[in-house]
Amino acid sequence: MIIDKLYKECIEKSPICVGLDTKIEYLPEYLIKSGMSIEEKIFTFNKMIIDNTIDLIACFKVQIAFYEALGIEGLKAYSKTVKYIREKGKIVIGDIKRGDISSTAEAYADAHFSGDFEVDIITVNPYMGYDSISPYEKYMENDDKALFMLIHTSNKSSKDFQELKVDGEKLYMKVAEKCSKWGEDSIGESGFNKIGGVVGLTFPEEFLEIKKKTPNTFFLIPGYGVQGGKGESIKEIFKDGICGVINSSRGIITAHKGKSEDENFVKYTRESVLSMKEDLIVG
Amino acid sequence: MIIDKLYKECIEKSPICVGLDTKIEYLPEYLIKSGMSIEEKIFTFNKMIIDNTIDLIACFKVQIAFYEALGIEGLKAYSKTVKYIREKGKIVIGDIKRGDISSTAEAYADAHFSGDFEVDIITVNPYMGYDSISPYEKYMENDDKALFMLIHTSNKSSKDFQELKVDGEKLYMKVAEKCSKWGEDSIGESGFNKIGGVVGLTFPEEFLEIKKKTPNTFFLIPGYGVQGGKGESIKEIFKDGICGVINSSRGIITAHKGKSEDENFVKYTRESVLSMKEDLIVG
Repeated sequence: MIIDKLYKECIEKSPICVGLDTKIEYLPEYLIKSGMSIEEKIFTFNKMIIDNTIDLIACFKVQIAFYEALGIEGLKAYSKTVKYIREKGKIVIGDIKRGDISSTAEAYADAHFSGDFEVDIITVNPYMGYDSISPYEKYMENDDKALFMLIHTSNKSSKDFQELKVDGEKLYMKVAEKCSKWGEDSIGESGFNKIGGVVGLTFPEEFLEIKKKTPNTFFLIPGYGVQGGKGESIKEIFKDGICGVINSSRGIITAHKGKSEDENFVKYTRESVLSMKEDLIVG
Repeated sequence: MIIDKLYKECIEKSPICVGLDTKIEYLPEYLIKSGMSIEEKIFTFNKMIIDNTIDLIACFKVQIAFYEALGIEGLKAYSKTVKYIREKGKIVIGDIKRGDISSTAEAYADAHFSGDFEVDIITVNPYMGYDSISPYEKYMENDDKALFMLIHTSNKSSKDFQELKVDGEKLYMKVAEKCSKWGEDSIGESGFNKIGGVVGLTFPEEFLEIKKKTPNTFFLIPGYGVQGGKGESIKEIFKDGICGVINSSRGIITAHKGKSEDENFVKYTRESVLSMKEDLIVG
């Protein structure tokens, strides 16, 4: 079961998820100036980051927005990137945050759990309710796929709707409850189920509240580093054991900026993952 | 201003939005069996529907999920389709329901308001709050683009979260209020602003409540026809004037099924639009 595998990777390597939120300006100059196509430049950059961090981390997350922004060429680079990670036997999360219903959600399932854009796990937006989650079940059962559903996001204006009070509780707690309930039939040997949750590290107290309500939910945790989330908070959240992967994107994939613009840039990428690992252990 | 233009199209033609939710199996057999690539088949089908309905309707909506499901080839067909509609001077809505924050939302704005996938209006998901709406403002101001934000969707499980009670009111009313507030600086001569709302026709009474709270909001209205929404409900909603476009997808683009499998299929497409027009007027 894919979440069991992800959990095992967290134990054996580290609970780090490297976010490939790749923009052209993040590339070292030797790549920007090379004669390659945009597709090749982006893929080469990603491949070098993958090759130089894969032994240290649990998984990769690829934010599709940055590839969509580059049009067809960008999406070809997305396709190559997710294929490469899967060929290496590593788990890849497609950060697509899709949310739609019935035949449309089925189309998104086909799009991201098979074919050119196939990944192992995708992020989904729950605003439209269970109709926007159930169409993925066929793939979750037959092809060992999983979801991360948005619960409480790391941004400031998550308060606009997610923190509105419903029956004395914040909306995100209702979403957390449903996330837990919708996943309850798929609990694996790790104790976690196939419908994980996205909860930002920027609100650590709220995270602990959510965790209490969702003991079988595995988390995708954004907000570490640049956004303000700290290693100490992770120590508290993981005090009874690892229950999620912590994503870092810019902190890792731009670590070389101002230091290296040649093919040795990955030295800084690797160092940044090692120091994140240290931060998560030492706190 | 694009919403003014859309309003004008509603008055001059009809408030119909044709949804190009194109799946291979919807194509007439002569196209399926032709030697064309998937990209060409899909685009040819769309082009024929566009050419044969453009004079009768307000706009087109293209549901990107169905194109993503076909991978890179599908997205090339999406790109060709939205370009073709824009070249014809017609408004095209990209039904993408994206929802993400800061630099990621900026990337989605770049992706869908410029380049290969440029459309006039996109649908967005508000769950992450204002941070997921504000990055589109630059394009709305400089390039005359607009948004349709999900408020109350047409599906059964919209009740899971959208109908939860917040301060005695349903959540979707809070979303409607914010939709109205966030758009208030961009009201055009039609009286409507640049942040429209998606409200399903399947819950007509709730629609009227929302409309009372959002007098300057233009609506994208799904749920007509196959999903159960009726022309009578539209008459009630439009009783003080047109305040939105009514989408129909399957009802129009599969109208030929069981009747025609050759290049004359568009006769049935056109007839279905004409009868929808009739239904909206006569009620």
